[in-house]
Amino acid sequence: MKKHKIAIMGFGTVGGGAYDILTGNADHIRSTQGLDIEIAAILDRSVEPLKKRGVSENLFCDSVDALAADPDIELVIETMGGVRPTKDFIVKLLTAGKSVVTANKELLAKHWSELEPIARAHGCGLFFEASCVGGVPIIRALGESFQGDKVKRLYGIINGTTNYILSKMSSAGLSYEQALAQAQEKGFAEADPTSDVEGYDAAYKLSILASLAFHTCIPYTSIFREGITKVTARDIANAHELGYEIKLIAIGARDGDDVEARVHPLFVPKDHPLASVSGAYNAVYLNGDHVGDLMFYGAGAGAHPTGSAIVSDVVRALSAPPTYCDFRNDGKIDGAINAVGDFTSKYYIGMTVEDKAGVLSRVATVFGDNGVSIRSAIQRPCADDAATLVFLTHAAREHAVMRSLDTISKLGSVGSIDAMIRVL
Amino acid sequence: MKKHKIAIMGFGTVGGGAYDILTGNADHIRSTQGLDIEIAAILDRSVEPLKKRGVSENLFCDSVDALAADPDIELVIETMGGVRPTKDFIVKLLTAGKSVVTANKELLAKHWSELEPIARAHGCGLFFEASCVGGVPIIRALGESFQGDKVKRLYGIINGTTNYILSKMSSAGLSYEQALAQAQEKGFAEADPTSDVEGYDAAYKLSILASLAFHTCIPYTSIFREGITKVTARDIANAHELGYEIKLIAIGARDGDDVEARVHPLFVPKDHPLASVSGAYNAVYLNGDHVGDLMFYGAGAGAHPTGSAIVSDVVRALSAPPTYCDFRNDGKIDGAINAVGDFTSKYYIGMTVEDKAGVLSRVATVFGDNGVSIRSAIQRPCADDAATLVFLTHAAREHAVMRSLDTISKLGSVGSIDAMIRVL
Repeated sequence: MKKHKIAIMGFGTVGGGAYDILTGNADHIRSTQGLDIEIAAILDRSVEPLKKRGVSENLFCDSVDALAADPDIELVIETMGGVRPTKDFIVKLLTAGKSVVTANKELLAKHWSELEPIARAHGCGLFFEASCVGGVPIIRALGESFQGDKVKRLYGIINGTTNYILSKMSSAGLSYEQALAQAQEKGFAEADPTSDVEGYDAAYKLSILASLAFHTCIPYTSIFREGITKVTARDIANAHELGYEIKLIAIGARDGDDVEARVHPLFVPKDHPLASVSGAYNAVYLNGDHVGDLMFYGAGAGAHPTGSAIVSDVVRALSAPPTYCDFRNDGKIDGAINAVGDFTSKYYIGMTVEDKAGVLSRVATVFGDNGVSIRSAIQRPCADDAATLVFLTHAAREHAVMRSLDTISKLGSVGSIDAMIRVL
Repeated sequence: MKKHKIAIMGFGTVGGGAYDILTGNADHIRSTQGLDIEIAAILDRSVEPLKKRGVSENLFCDSVDALAADPDIELVIETMGGVRPTKDFIVKLLTAGKSVVTANKELLAKHWSELEPIARAHGCGLFFEASCVGGVPIIRALGESFQGDKVKRLYGIINGTTNYILSKMSSAGLSYEQALAQAQEKGFAEADPTSDVEGYDAAYKLSILASLAFHTCIPYTSIFREGITKVTARDIANAHELGYEIKLIAIGARDGDDVEARVHPLFVPKDHPLASVSGAYNAVYLNGDHVGDLMFYGAGAGAHPTGSAIVSDVVRALSAPPTYCDFRNDGKIDGAINAVGDFTSKYYIGMTVEDKAGVLSRVATVFGDNGVSIRSAIQRPCADDAATLVFLTHAAREHAVMRSLDTISKLGSVGSIDAMIRVL
């Protein structure tokens, strides 16, 4: 059996997870896949990560040029993260004909269009199953299953940090700040949580998933993005009362040449399969014109689930010729495709108003004037001669809702618009 | 672009679904997959099915030998079903070098080991994504994802008919007979429902899924099988009260060389993702040693979901060289593997006893003598000086529970053992 030599570039959590699987299950991979894989080099800034894991220092390598020049190394696992210097490193490796397996969604969302042609030109592959939804084989499925279907809609819970925070808010009644602090304590959120809680991470992944699902470039810069930092314990309580959970959802939809791509909190009906995806679990729910509804569910992150996806790509890369997607992810949406900004949704809206006659009517009139139809309204007295109003709307145009709220916020008797969350 | 000519063999519901997709989405398949596919022949017993669908009678073919001899036909979709004469037809086609795409789980479970070597010998492929779980790409996932993982457990709701019946019993309080009648009325159950309700269909599929998941032959004849015909409305009510749903579950588990494979009703905790898979939906939940828990969910059957899986296989077959699984499915479990009959489970047990002192104690003593530990017991009076006893046990050996029930049924004060359902 031929020995395949590979390298790992960046020996942190995920790189270590891939290492564990490739070494711990080496016999299993040999017997079931017919592949004898040897980790021949590990690139990192220092030898410390190797020492910490008890890995022979002989594997240590501190030069990507040495990896690129080593004729024995067929493939490199990239688990450094970030865009710089990672992109330059990957370009060097692909140019040297080494296939690259990466978990790096930011890099891929930003530079897919530059990297894939380099891989193709040098006869090697660029694999990224691990970039989205941990060990769930969603990249493989979007590329190599239901190829006869036009995917119409895709809903993803694709960020573990925000799902953990929202799940904690939902189950334990915590505030956003309390839940974030717990997530940071348990290692589910970083010290600077911006990329997760503001929806950047989900937007990178949605760019990749939607580009594959809709067979066209959906640049991450074209994705409407709103994070979870404004979701309050009161919103969660209202959601429960109305029969919903609040999730950060990445939505992609294609109707002919119109494409919607957006990441924002969403009221999800409690009996929808996505509502019960909780904690650090992730899921992608999609609808094809023939296959109907499908859902793919699993751990969204973590050393071993993500490592599992990396190893899957390594096996694929070493077993078959590479394939290419050829979607330009260069920040320009395909000319034939319209990005829909004024999408249609249902809405949950909360506001505080003066508790006096005629206010509800004046607010409702503004909605009506803008063509926003109210499905249900709840008015409750609160402190200081004020009342809270909670509305659920029928499907309406985003811009019409925004115009309504702008006008309503200027009505004399309206104290504040407290919440506006879209509803599935 | 080269035109690929293919044929459909058996133009019923599923064959018609595949036809709809291949013709209706032909442009989409051309532009996204680079494949120009023409349905050049349709084999059936008469031309009627073609007429009924408004398909040109010129496509009609009544001879498999003609298909096998036609040098232009690259691939045949088999949607005839059954084992005879289907198997002979497939052998002729494979021998002639035509790849075969099939939805036929019974044929595959029974004759995989004979058919695959013929395909391999003649350089063509045998594809069967559509054989299990409709349009859900579970065959592809088991073969080509998480290859670095040892799959430890697999739980499947893989029969739509029984899931529909049990869901109706659960949501509408119907008896088994009422729910079956509704399922038959709506076309979810056949006039003779035996294959579905007695678990044969699920056992065929489990044989395929478990063989792929565990990389060894799991013949359907080695699968422990119990259907849903004995599940009563009272069992469902008891399940709800205890926090469970009842589902027909196909279970595969591998621990070293020990393999369990069984199909039977199962109490599933309400917060488990499988509990909310209802109606005609199917799902496969599995656990790998690194990827953790995954779930694949979607329509389990139907012309278009199953047709979608067929078209996916057609695209695969026409795009890349075939791959082979090489698991002997010839009715003999791999010599290195032990089929575990005396598996371990938790149990729900219901019985009717005389309502007098000491009965509960005598019954509990029998369980204790057999090493079966009781987790909870409920005694309720019912008519005629009788009482019902409901037990939930801790994990126990199947054979120990059976021995206990045998002894208990012979106790003077025990009227009947009414239910024994395993618990997840």
